[in-house]
Amino acid sequence: MNLELITTGSELLLGLVTNTHVNFIARQLLPLGHRINRHTTVGDDPAALRAAITDALARADILLITGGLGPTSDDITRDIVAELLGRKLLRDDAVAAAITERVRRRGLKMLDQLLVQALVPEGATVLPNLNGTAPGLAIEHKGKLIVLLPGPPRELQPMFIQSVLPLLPRNKTGTLPQCRSYKIAGLPESVVEEKVAPVLAGLPDLELGYCARPGEVEVRVITPRLAEAEQRIRAALGTDIFGTDADRLEEVVVKMLTESRKTVATAESCTGGLIANRLTNVSGSSAVFLTGYVTYSNTAKQRDLGVRAETLEEFGAVSEQVAREMAEGARTRTGADFALSATGIAGPIGGTPDKPVGLVFIGLATPTYTKVCRWQITFDRETLKFFVSQTALDLLRRELRVGC
Amino acid sequence: MNLELITTGSELLLGLVTNTHVNFIARQLLPLGHRINRHTTVGDDPAALRAAITDALARADILLITGGLGPTSDDITRDIVAELLGRKLLRDDAVAAAITERVRRRGLKMLDQLLVQALVPEGATVLPNLNGTAPGLAIEHKGKLIVLLPGPPRELQPMFIQSVLPLLPRNKTGTLPQCRSYKIAGLPESVVEEKVAPVLAGLPDLELGYCARPGEVEVRVITPRLAEAEQRIRAALGTDIFGTDADRLEEVVVKMLTESRKTVATAESCTGGLIANRLTNVSGSSAVFLTGYVTYSNTAKQRDLGVRAETLEEFGAVSEQVAREMAEGARTRTGADFALSATGIAGPIGGTPDKPVGLVFIGLATPTYTKVCRWQITFDRETLKFFVSQTALDLLRRELRVGC
Repeated sequence: MNLELITTGSELLLGLVTNTHVNFIARQLLPLGHRINRHTTVGDDPAALRAAITDALARADILLITGGLGPTSDDITRDIVAELLGRKLLRDDAVAAAITERVRRRGLKMLDQLLVQALVPEGATVLPNLNGTAPGLAIEHKGKLIVLLPGPPRELQPMFIQSVLPLLPRNKTGTLPQCRSYKIAGLPESVVEEKVAPVLAGLPDLELGYCARPGEVEVRVITPRLAEAEQRIRAALGTDIFGTDADRLEEVVVKMLTESRKTVATAESCTGGLIANRLTNVSGSSAVFLTGYVTYSNTAKQRDLGVRAETLEEFGAVSEQVAREMAEGARTRTGADFALSATGIAGPIGGTPDKPVGLVFIGLATPTYTKVCRWQITFDRETLKFFVSQTALDLLRRELRVGC
Repeated sequence: MNLELITTGSELLLGLVTNTHVNFIARQLLPLGHRINRHTTVGDDPAALRAAITDALARADILLITGGLGPTSDDITRDIVAELLGRKLLRDDAVAAAITERVRRRGLKMLDQLLVQALVPEGATVLPNLNGTAPGLAIEHKGKLIVLLPGPPRELQPMFIQSVLPLLPRNKTGTLPQCRSYKIAGLPESVVEEKVAPVLAGLPDLELGYCARPGEVEVRVITPRLAEAEQRIRAALGTDIFGTDADRLEEVVVKMLTESRKTVATAESCTGGLIANRLTNVSGSSAVFLTGYVTYSNTAKQRDLGVRAETLEEFGAVSEQVAREMAEGARTRTGADFALSATGIAGPIGGTPDKPVGLVFIGLATPTYTKVCRWQITFDRETLKFFVSQTALDLLRRELRVGC
């Protein structure tokens, strides 16, 4: 079964808004065995939209169209679809009443123009909009299904789950594929591929994808035999896997700290507060995250973390020794079980021949010992910060796995 | 002139990767008077790609195609384009040498397969790739221009600016439209619109768009008479505008601090290090950012910022008084000229009837006085953190405008 998506809106083609519909819809479709086979975007231009719909209907069994259902003059999708399918637009009284009621409840002025949203192509099914005025529309036409959806994501997304998914036939070709992503920190992409590809060889209908991000590799597996694939992947990668799908490393770390009733503090130089920021993005982190220090200056490192003047003098702020004293200082000062530290040259300026841009030391102080890892990496400033925060959090994750 | 974009890659249609090419390319095109008239995405499927290219070539004068130029088996764009245009693929020795040299320099193994990237359709222009092995290709064919670009954004983006823009003709229809975005902090979208729309009324060929983000409103103006529009907008909004286009508030603040030779420290509770993180994202911030404290616990607020036990006892950690003592404590302790503080209930848990989720106090300590703003807002946790960091940075920006 061939499914296509048309997203409409000049703002999408002007590069002013990122199109989130594709990702959302694709992820909803996969469990039903559907994929988007072609995705087209056109602006709020009647001729372009007419052409795109005509083209897509020549190929697709299921056509999803987003945007252009609202009350303003650039909302043209409803009219054009009705015209192309040769269906009259009729006012739906229930929809008109719902719009009037919604406007009244919000204390807004009722304008006649709003009621164009109550026009429904003859024979279409109305899909309720819980977060806006324009309903969705589903039309069966010559064996094809055409679904019109509102443009705003907060209107489209609940409508898609509640009203569109039940309308879609399960794709009958073979066993339904399942998709899962495995997230790995601390290994380069090539090593992950070397470990994963051989153990999955032979699984039928297997699609394997790799995505490398700074400090993280994601392995995407699509197969009707996901349980078997999962077992093999976990056997191959073990604790290198920190999570699946939407899991984030900071969530995993906060969960592990919470479960083991341990606390953490941070002492950051080159990451500038990013490690603390990521940990505190997790709801409930206040129970495990005690204090973070962003000690950019040497003075701050001495005053707030107790780094010794001689250490700074002898080895410099970007050194294994200072990373160690920062982590130990933060741990001692705050009474946390663990402390993470990072010091390095984030660039693009500030490097020297001895200590080039990208030289980083990451420390972890624990109740029994302190370890410091040295990295030399080239990234732009923000990517480097993210990589270092990722590596630091993974250092703690591995410690918590072993130690607790 | 009709310009179309085809982006290729199954990962785009599976919803696993967000397509950033459209936004980037559209913003590059506008100053030349070009727009993307239709955007199509297809997967790594030869039949689908062949059909999409054939369709687009029937309409477009300029066709941009991204992705599928790499060395693996799902990289099919080069072959299909050569086939459709009836051009032989010939090895380009200079490209082959560059690939071999790049592989050698990175200490990787040279594989024969990598040299498919040196195949060039007869008559095509090679566009150098500064960040990868696969070059771009530009082909003039029957009065049309077809440009093939690599998929990874860090390869495509510099190539587009350096090699593609110079190839594109200026669109001759009428005066070139110009686009500029004005960024405003501290005003709600409706107020911005109320101020901007009337003063721009009457400008010919005006397109006006608004985009509201947490703590920020962006007004987008497209018009052939941009200088006039700019004058009117600046007269209407004055110092509420903190920047234009890609400007970020943290960059503006660091620049103002640098120019006035002032320093800042941060004392963060609910923002968890985000203010420090944003400031330190700016290269050169080490000259103006002294120290950041992420004092989640009351103990930390007392120990590191000198917040008084009685203040915490009497007013609670989320209070105007504690925000004040945090900012003043950070300023005194670090010797910075300014200090920002934030304390609040980020949620989704932790609220009480007296102090609900979304209650936030933002403080600014200066050499002469301290001010604290109170906000009650509802956002998810990360959005709230961003909003608060934005509001805090804007507080400092306005202070620096007046004071320096």
